[in-house]
Amino acid sequence: VGAGDRGRVSLLVEDLHQADVGTLLEALEPEERPQLIELLGRDFDFSALTEVDDAVREEILEELETETVAEGVRDLDSDDAVYILEDLTDADQAEILQHLPAVERVALQRALDYPEDSAGRLMQTEFIAVPPFWTVGQTIDFMRETEELPDTFYEIFVVDPGIRLLGSVPLDKLLRSKRPVRISGIMLDEPDQVEATDQQEDVARRFQRYNLVSAAVIDEAGRLVGVITIDDVVDVIEEEADAEIKALGGVKPDEELSDNVWEIARGRFTWLLVNLLTAILASAVIGLFEKSLEKMVALAVLMPIVASMGGNAGTQSMTVAVRALATRNLGRGNVRRIVGREILVGLINGVAFALVMGVVAVVWFGLPSLGPVIGLALIVTLTSAAFGGIVIPVLLDRFEVDPAVASGPFVTTITDVVGFFAFLGIATLWFGLG
Amino acid sequence: VGAGDRGRVSLLVEDLHQADVGTLLEALEPEERPQLIELLGRDFDFSALTEVDDAVREEILEELETETVAEGVRDLDSDDAVYILEDLTDADQAEILQHLPAVERVALQRALDYPEDSAGRLMQTEFIAVPPFWTVGQTIDFMRETEELPDTFYEIFVVDPGIRLLGSVPLDKLLRSKRPVRISGIMLDEPDQVEATDQQEDVARRFQRYNLVSAAVIDEAGRLVGVITIDDVVDVIEEEADAEIKALGGVKPDEELSDNVWEIARGRFTWLLVNLLTAILASAVIGLFEKSLEKMVALAVLMPIVASMGGNAGTQSMTVAVRALATRNLGRGNVRRIVGREILVGLINGVAFALVMGVVAVVWFGLPSLGPVIGLALIVTLTSAAFGGIVIPVLLDRFEVDPAVASGPFVTTITDVVGFFAFLGIATLWFGLG
Repeated sequence: VGAGDRGRVSLLVEDLHQADVGTLLEALEPEERPQLIELLGRDFDFSALTEVDDAVREEILEELETETVAEGVRDLDSDDAVYILEDLTDADQAEILQHLPAVERVALQRALDYPEDSAGRLMQTEFIAVPPFWTVGQTIDFMRETEELPDTFYEIFVVDPGIRLLGSVPLDKLLRSKRPVRISGIMLDEPDQVEATDQQEDVARRFQRYNLVSAAVIDEAGRLVGVITIDDVVDVIEEEADAEIKALGGVKPDEELSDNVWEIARGRFTWLLVNLLTAILASAVIGLFEKSLEKMVALAVLMPIVASMGGNAGTQSMTVAVRALATRNLGRGNVRRIVGREILVGLINGVAFALVMGVVAVVWFGLPSLGPVIGLALIVTLTSAAFGGIVIPVLLDRFEVDPAVASGPFVTTITDVVGFFAFLGIATLWFGLG
Repeated sequence: VGAGDRGRVSLLVEDLHQADVGTLLEALEPEERPQLIELLGRDFDFSALTEVDDAVREEILEELETETVAEGVRDLDSDDAVYILEDLTDADQAEILQHLPAVERVALQRALDYPEDSAGRLMQTEFIAVPPFWTVGQTIDFMRETEELPDTFYEIFVVDPGIRLLGSVPLDKLLRSKRPVRISGIMLDEPDQVEATDQQEDVARRFQRYNLVSAAVIDEAGRLVGVITIDDVVDVIEEEADAEIKALGGVKPDEELSDNVWEIARGRFTWLLVNLLTAILASAVIGLFEKSLEKMVALAVLMPIVASMGGNAGTQSMTVAVRALATRNLGRGNVRRIVGREILVGLINGVAFALVMGVVAVVWFGLPSLGPVIGLALIVTLTSAAFGGIVIPVLLDRFEVDPAVASGPFVTTITDVVGFFAFLGIATLWFGLG
C-alpha cells in the first residue's frame, strides 16, 4: 500500500471475503487504511467496513472523500449502508446522502429515521413482493428477468396493491410447487413479521425462539417496508451477549480493543468510582468496631474472608438472575420459586462453609469460640448475599434499569456491609468487646 | 390434562409453535408432562422437546415408553433427533434406535458417534444433492416430485458419484436461472463447508464471520454427510455466551433454572471453596502484619478499600481479555500492545484514585501521612490488577484452559494479596510499625 502499487494490492484483496478485508484493514496502520480504500477505488467492497470496530470505521470515514463514501454505500444492501452511516453526525450523513440518487436516498433516510437499535435500522429495504393472484411460473419468470434483486433472500412476500403484507412464500416451497399454482394457494397466511419500531433485542429473541431465517418488517399501517435476515440478527445476539458480559465485569459495552488508553481509562473510572463509594461504606461499618478490633486483632485478619465469600455467593446468584432475565426465563410466574430457591442455596452453602471455616479458624488461632462466631457470620452473610443477588436484579428489571449494568454495586454493598457487620457485631457481643 | 380430555387439549396445542409447546411443558407439573405427550399421541411434535431445559427433557424421556419416543424422533429432522437423544445413556439410546427403520437408525447412530460438541452432532443428514450435469429444470422437477425433502433448506449441493462435494447452489440462484442451464455452470466451486469433527464453537465463529446461512458438512474423505443450518448455530452462539457469562460469575455452565436446590448448592460449593482458599491466603498476608494492625487500627478499617478497588480493576481487565479471546480478537499479533495498554490504564486509574482516596483518608482520620500511604498502595494494586487481569487469561488460553472458568480465582488472589501486602507493608515502613 505504501508504494501505491494498485495492481498488486487489488490482486491481493480481490479473492478475500469482506470479513477478511475488514481484518486486513484493522491490521494496517491508521493512515494506511483510507489509502488502501482509495487505491482500490471501485474494487473496494464497502461491506468490509461493516466488519471493523466502530472506532476504526469512524476514523476511515472521516478521512475519505464524501463522494467516495456515497459511491461505496450505493452498491450496498440498505442494511449495510445504514450500519455504516448510523454512527456519523447528522451533517455528515446529510452530505453523503446528497450524493445518492433520489430513490436510494429516500430509502436510507427512512431507515435512519427509525430509532437507534430498532428493527427499522436493522432491516434491508430490498425485497421481492408479488401480488397473490400471480402463479408460481409468473413469479419465477419475474425473478429470472429482474436485474436488481437483493443479494440473497430466503422468502418472497405477498402484498396487496397498498403494499400491505398478506403472506410469504419460502423459496423452497416456491421451488417445489408446479408453475400453474397460484401464489395465494401456497403462501403462509401468518408470515413471520416484526414492526419497524420494535427493539432489535426483541427481534433477536423472536428469531431465536422460533428458529426464523428472515422476517418481514411492517410499519404502523401494516405496510411492508423491509426484511430482516438472520445474519443481521446473529450480530445483534452477539452484541447483546457482549454488552451483558462487559456490563457484569464493569466495562462499558462500547469499549473496543481499538480504543485509546485515555478513553478506556475514563470509561472504567466511572465504575471504579461507584465501587469506591460502596467500599467506603463498608469501611465505615468496620469503623464502628474499632474498639473490638483493637482488643482482638484476629478479627481484622479474618473479616475479609467473610466479605469475600459473601461477595462471591452474591455474584453467583446475581449472574443466574441477570441471565434468566435476559433470556426471559425469569418472570412473574416463577420469581417466588426462584427467590426461595436461591435463599435456600445460600443457607445450605452458608452452613457448609460455617463448618469448614469454623474449624479452620479454631485451628489457626487456637481460640475455640472463634469457630461459632465466624460460622454464624458466614451463614448470615451467604444467605443475605443470595437474597440480594436475586432480588436486586429482579427489582432493577421491574423499574426498567438494565440489571446487568446496575446490579453489581448494590449486591457488593449488601454483601460487604452485611459481612463485616455480622462478623464484627457477633464477635463483639460474643466476646464482650463492646 | 388432568381430566384426560384429549380433544380439548389437542385443539389447544394444535396451533402453537413448537417453542410455545415447550414453554407449556415447562409450566406443567413434572408428572403432567409425559401425560400431556401421551394424551396427544401422534399429534405431539417431538421437536418441542428441543425447546425445554435439559433436566426437564431427561425427566420426560425417562417416563415415556421407548416405542413412543422412537415413533416421535422418527418424524424429526436428524439434528433435532440427535439433540434429544444425545444426553441419554448409551443403553437407552440403543433401545430407542432399535425401534427405528434401518436407514434412519444408521444415520442417527453415525451422528451420535461423532464427538460431543462437534459439527457432526449439530448437522442434519437430510439434504438435497444432485450431479453437476443436471440442468436447472431437471433439478426443479426432481424437487417437485420428491416427497421426502428436508423441512427447510437454503441451498442444494452438487456431488460426484462418490458423494464427494463439488459445489453448492443457493436457492435464489437456482430460481433466477433458466431451465436449460447446467448446474455445473451456476454452482459455487468453493461451497461453505466444515468437517464433521470440527468444534461447534469454531463452526459458529465461521458462520458469524462470513454471514453464512447453511454449510455443508464433510467427513475425512471429503464425502458430503450433512448440512448445518443457521438456526442450530444461533443456539450454539447463545449457549457459548451463556457458558461464558456463567463461568465468569462462578456458576456451572449447565446449571439451569429447573435444577433442584441440592444440585445447585453442590455446583456452586466448588467455586466458593476455591474462593475460600484464595481468601485464606489473603488473610495469611494480613496475619503477617498483626503487630502493625494492633498499633494502628485505622489500617484495618481502610485495607478492604484497597483490596476491593484492586479486585474490581482486575475484573475489568479480565472481562476484556476473556471477551477478546472468545471472539478471537486477541492473539499473538496484538497481545503485547493490549497488555501494555491495560497496564497504562491501571496506572492512570491508580493515580486518579490515589488522589481521591488519599484526600478522603486524610480528612477521615485526620492523619496527613495516611494519604500518601493509601495512595501509593492503590497505584501498586491497580497496576498489578490490570496486569494480572490481562496476562492470566492469555496464559490460561495458551495452555488450553478455558479463561472464562479459571481466571477469576487467580486474578482475585493477585489483587487481594498485592492489595493487602502493599497497603500494610507500605504503612508498616512509613510509620515504623514493624
